Amino acid sequence: MIVGILGGGQLARMLVLAGIPLGMRFLILDPSPDASGASLGEHIVAAYDDPVALARLAERCDRITYEFENVPAAAAQWLASERRPVHPPPAALAVARDRLREKDLFKDVGIPVAAVEAVEDLYSLQHAAEVVGLPAVLKTRTLGYDGRGQIVIAETEIIEDAWRRLAGVPAVLEAYVAFEREVSVIAVRGAEGRTAFYPLSENVHHDGILVTARSRPDDPQQARAEEYATRLLDALDYRGVLAIEFFEKDGELLANEIAPRVHNSGHWTIEGAVTSQFENHLRAIADLPLGSTSPVGYAAMVNLIGEIPDPTPLLNMPDVHLHVYGKVHRPGRKVGHVTVRAETPERLETLLEDVTGLVGIPL
Amino acid sequence: MIVGILGGGQLARMLVLAGIPLGMRFLILDPSPDASGASLGEHIVAAYDDPVALARLAERCDRITYEFENVPAAAAQWLASERRPVHPPPAALAVARDRLREKDLFKDVGIPVAAVEAVEDLYSLQHAAEVVGLPAVLKTRTLGYDGRGQIVIAETEIIEDAWRRLAGVPAVLEAYVAFEREVSVIAVRGAEGRTAFYPLSENVHHDGILVTARSRPDDPQQARAEEYATRLLDALDYRGVLAIEFFEKDGELLANEIAPRVHNSGHWTIEGAVTSQFENHLRAIADLPLGSTSPVGYAAMVNLIGEIPDPTPLLNMPDVHLHVYGKVHRPGRKVGHVTVRAETPERLETLLEDVTGLVGIPL
Repeated sequence: MIVGILGGGQLARMLVLAGIPLGMRFLILDPSPDASGASLGEHIVAAYDDPVALARLAERCDRITYEFENVPAAAAQWLASERRPVHPPPAALAVARDRLREKDLFKDVGIPVAAVEAVEDLYSLQHAAEVVGLPAVLKTRTLGYDGRGQIVIAETEIIEDAWRRLAGVPAVLEAYVAFEREVSVIAVRGAEGRTAFYPLSENVHHDGILVTARSRPDDPQQARAEEYATRLLDALDYRGVLAIEFFEKDGELLANEIAPRVHNSGHWTIEGAVTSQFENHLRAIADLPLGSTSPVGYAAMVNLIGEIPDPTPLLNMPDVHLHVYGKVHRPGRKVGHVTVRAETPERLETLLEDVTGLVGIPL
Repeated sequence: MIVGILGGGQLARMLVLAGIPLGMRFLILDPSPDASGASLGEHIVAAYDDPVALARLAERCDRITYEFENVPAAAAQWLASERRPVHPPPAALAVARDRLREKDLFKDVGIPVAAVEAVEDLYSLQHAAEVVGLPAVLKTRTLGYDGRGQIVIAETEIIEDAWRRLAGVPAVLEAYVAFEREVSVIAVRGAEGRTAFYPLSENVHHDGILVTARSRPDDPQQARAEEYATRLLDALDYRGVLAIEFFEKDGELLANEIAPRVHNSGHWTIEGAVTSQFENHLRAIADLPLGSTSPVGYAAMVNLIGEIPDPTPLLNMPDVHLHVYGKVHRPGRKVGHVTVRAETPERLETLLEDVTGLVGIPL
């Protein structure tokens, strides 16, 4: 089976590493000639909306998927219209690319969200600030990730300035949630609508970038997160891995956003679950049975941001696993991650403290 | 770091899959244009003794290793003489390629072996049969694997015929061991002579081909196997993974052969150990700390021989993992393997029965 992937970053790279043992081959479309994930498959260097490149993908691939949501939904739709199975469905991509549609979907299926209002101009922003209340977060409707395109508005005086800084693009204003913690659920839906869910991931962000994610087997919010995820998977007639990020506040989960793809907060599943999110995404889109999502011990992931540290002290620790993405190093860029695994949550915390110390990331 | 591999089969493939997350890149020398493991790295299609190809390897690689022992030892020696670190040491390759030198080494370091005599002509074969006793196994000194180049001599009448069938190549005659079981130890020696050992593997062969290998945490022979392995690793000033196969008979281990490389009986380490044999081989040759060889549950490997079965019923089972090698299917050829993992040895046996039934291999 030949699988086409739109996007050739680290997620494509880890998909390929998971798919090769299943006997899959990969064709990767990415405009960057040095896309790190593309080097493991056949690489088509072209824009995501290049009609010749898309036609080649459609012609040669048995299944097509994508590794990030900033590919044009129109490209995914065109591929699907060529009768190539595109998973997850392009409709999920369209929703995930647009914060307003995303929040509307959450509301439609009865998943709690923070108060949110559409913003199209300064006037509607001022109105939204009154409805939502301050502090609030102004976010571009599309193309935001890792905290980009977001401005916190703490008081009415800066509303105008915030709108100017956003350069007038369509946006949403969301109530600022003083959450107790952030969790995500990595869900997967396969052939015949079968679903599976990984143990919740508890995530810590700094400056809008995920720095650590811990597996949380037996989390008290597990059942609720799975229930919400099921509603979304069914509503979207979904196929593949779907990540849903929540804020936990006063015992309730508020949905923040979805990613219709494998997700950074699920990287610990490579060592910390029986079947990784990458393998399960591929199994789902290839009509293969889903693999067990049971945890293997307790696991945590630490992102390597900007540079890869000296691997020796890291690899000297037991059950520490290094994942280098082969990307050019740049400040703020995710260039790899480390997984730590332990038999108990207490032991995991001790190891995690050591790893974050070595990596230079605040725990 | 760029690692050169002599040989581009499934062992190279699994080395590459383990090395990419460590940030390594690979240059693979294999004369076959469709070598399945070579497609994941840069592939030099040339004979193993092609001087231009070897020079290219020497020039570009930081480390050089090999994935099977039938590469010319002279090629490895030449690469080492070009001041490129070649691991495991070419001396180990030379020993492993020659059953007589191999047995001599076992004896030199005090590891028990079955009675064995060198055979150079019909006369010395007849003499050997008297010394060793019958039944015995006549084996070519070099180039034998998976039971090839071996003839069982049960009675004196067939000695002449056996010698003719072997076409007069240098050989050894070994006493036939009616062993109780076959076990192997996967050992690894890294920088500064540090060593680590996986739990013993208990192996079942059919027609000379390995069909199943089970991890045996806490095996009563573990300490003895490690002691023997340590003697070999030290004697060879070894670097990398070394596999040693033993026959168990009357509570003793008799060394059968070594493989100076990652080994089929260690494939279960991908899921069944904290660090796989492939990653540890690469860590060892790259001067990185060795990873933990602790078991993760109980694991077993089932070889897929000749063809890949329908994956759906296999992947429907919990904690079953498929490894397809991407090789052309041919009767008798290893084209993939399946790993099964369980929390108890009893549960493992049940799952293993199901898997071998699906795969069509006798348990």
